[in-house]
Amino acid sequence: MDQVSIAVDAMGGDHAPDIVVDAAVMALEQEPNIILTLFGNEDMIKDKLAAKSYDQSRLNIVNATETIDNNESPVLAIRRKKESSIVKGLRFVKEGHADAFVSAGSTGAVLAGGTLIIGRIKGVERPALGSFIPTKNGITLLMDCGANVDSKPIFLHQFAKMGASYSQSFTGKARPTIGLLNVGEEEKKGNSLTKETYILLKQDTSLNFIGNIEGRDIASGQADVIIADGFTGNLILKHTEGLAMFLLSQIKQAITSTWYSKIGALLIKGPLKKMLKSFDYTEYGGAPLLGLEGLVVKAHGSSNAKAFKNAIVQCKTFSDEKVNEKIKQQLI
Amino acid sequence: MDQVSIAVDAMGGDHAPDIVVDAAVMALEQEPNIILTLFGNEDMIKDKLAAKSYDQSRLNIVNATETIDNNESPVLAIRRKKESSIVKGLRFVKEGHADAFVSAGSTGAVLAGGTLIIGRIKGVERPALGSFIPTKNGITLLMDCGANVDSKPIFLHQFAKMGASYSQSFTGKARPTIGLLNVGEEEKKGNSLTKETYILLKQDTSLNFIGNIEGRDIASGQADVIIADGFTGNLILKHTEGLAMFLLSQIKQAITSTWYSKIGALLIKGPLKKMLKSFDYTEYGGAPLLGLEGLVVKAHGSSNAKAFKNAIVQCKTFSDEKVNEKIKQQLI
Repeated sequence: MDQVSIAVDAMGGDHAPDIVVDAAVMALEQEPNIILTLFGNEDMIKDKLAAKSYDQSRLNIVNATETIDNNESPVLAIRRKKESSIVKGLRFVKEGHADAFVSAGSTGAVLAGGTLIIGRIKGVERPALGSFIPTKNGITLLMDCGANVDSKPIFLHQFAKMGASYSQSFTGKARPTIGLLNVGEEEKKGNSLTKETYILLKQDTSLNFIGNIEGRDIASGQADVIIADGFTGNLILKHTEGLAMFLLSQIKQAITSTWYSKIGALLIKGPLKKMLKSFDYTEYGGAPLLGLEGLVVKAHGSSNAKAFKNAIVQCKTFSDEKVNEKIKQQLI
Repeated sequence: MDQVSIAVDAMGGDHAPDIVVDAAVMALEQEPNIILTLFGNEDMIKDKLAAKSYDQSRLNIVNATETIDNNESPVLAIRRKKESSIVKGLRFVKEGHADAFVSAGSTGAVLAGGTLIIGRIKGVERPALGSFIPTKNGITLLMDCGANVDSKPIFLHQFAKMGASYSQSFTGKARPTIGLLNVGEEEKKGNSLTKETYILLKQDTSLNFIGNIEGRDIASGQADVIIADGFTGNLILKHTEGLAMFLLSQIKQAITSTWYSKIGALLIKGPLKKMLKSFDYTEYGGAPLLGLEGLVVKAHGSSNAKAFKNAIVQCKTFSDEKVNEKIKQQLI
């Protein structure tokens, strides 16, 4: 296997740089064929690394004196903050020093940086975030999950093409089924965006388009890929996480409410834990920003070390699978 | 208590008129202070009623020879099908013969009929569907849940006012908290619709606006009322139902997968069942179409008899609570 070089934003996310450093060490341990370069406050990173044992030959640090937060205008921040971890990390990829960039920072800044610094694949209108969600048939790719909150039908049509290619790489299915997230099953249902998008998807015979997917059917796994604008996709993705967590906490509370149910709870613990794993977003790592000339992975802002480690390790898989190259071919 | 007269669409929903007739008989049994008038195919309704025992003095039938389905243009259907159960039922309310209309039929047709026949409260731009969803703190009102798939900031501002009034009636809270469904916590986050709506909600000091609610926080119950456009609201509502059902089926499968977990499952059955009730949409009945001059309640298209019975009985509560009159006062 080829070595894959990954640029890591050490300053992004709610718990940076601590969890990023933890995650980097875990990733090096798990995956021998990666080399990491951490971008961020060198002193803080070194301090945190001092107590750890890891393969120093595969971990580099590049000092970055600025950070970009969620409150800034993404485009302005990318243009002005040349010394930020995001700008320096993305440049590193653009200049060919790394194969991928991963960040738990501001989605807007990673998107703006990816577009301005790395650039879009020729013909791509807007890059989109593709995330997997657990469904009855395993997992379903939902995209866009937040890169494009104001979308046009032509964007959604491209998301479908990119999503088909990405899903193909992962499921091995020759023609993954594509559904359009909508408020009704019927062709004429929806808002102006989905009505127009429906026509584009139906006309494109390269896609295995199966029609509209209603809210109640998202979890039923009817489609391999569900297409949505970034506003709706983000809300569905996050609500899936939030609701699953809430439901599971309710169940936990319910089953420990009486002495006999407490015994019952002990007996079901094992099988339940196994099932819960599929709803644990930390298992999924990050979401790739599809449609860029380079590999950019966005991890959850609230990632813990395990989630961010999975996002780092995923970069290796994405790189091996040549996700971007396949999308390029799909769009030609 | 006053008698409340309710016009019932016997032909709406996936299982009409059978479940509607079942529901009507159940509702008469449960609630002595209602009088029902069923609109639909008289022969079919009478056939179904023949085998049942119920208080005949409180159940009337009005023959309606046409039905409106999900595939029709709602406005055209309302204008043309004067003999449909929806048009005749709504007219019955408009003419003062009934206090409320309830239907499990096409949302679009009920909305168009409500607007064209009963009319909007003066000043209301668009009526909206308000549904309760289960959350950590009990229930949260989500609106709009599907009446307005293409919305404007001014519509959402009105949804907030109407939602505050409706929530007040039910929770008894003087100033229910209002959140705006959005992709980020920060004021500047969102699509063009939510960014503009944020400004309107913030400026309106009559509202107890607490800012944006992200997808992951919908289930946490931070806000008494969550405001969304009808497209997003519908998807969140339906996904909540679909995901809860999926999760619970997964749990059932997991906890019956080994012999000892099967024993455990028996021990937790009671407490679990109690908790599951809050996620059973059939318990919630229907959603009122807020902003009309009369009371119109939309039940789930796939309602079973119990769900539709609850929607009928709710009309009595809405009427007693003077939901519409309070909204009128709020908007003056």
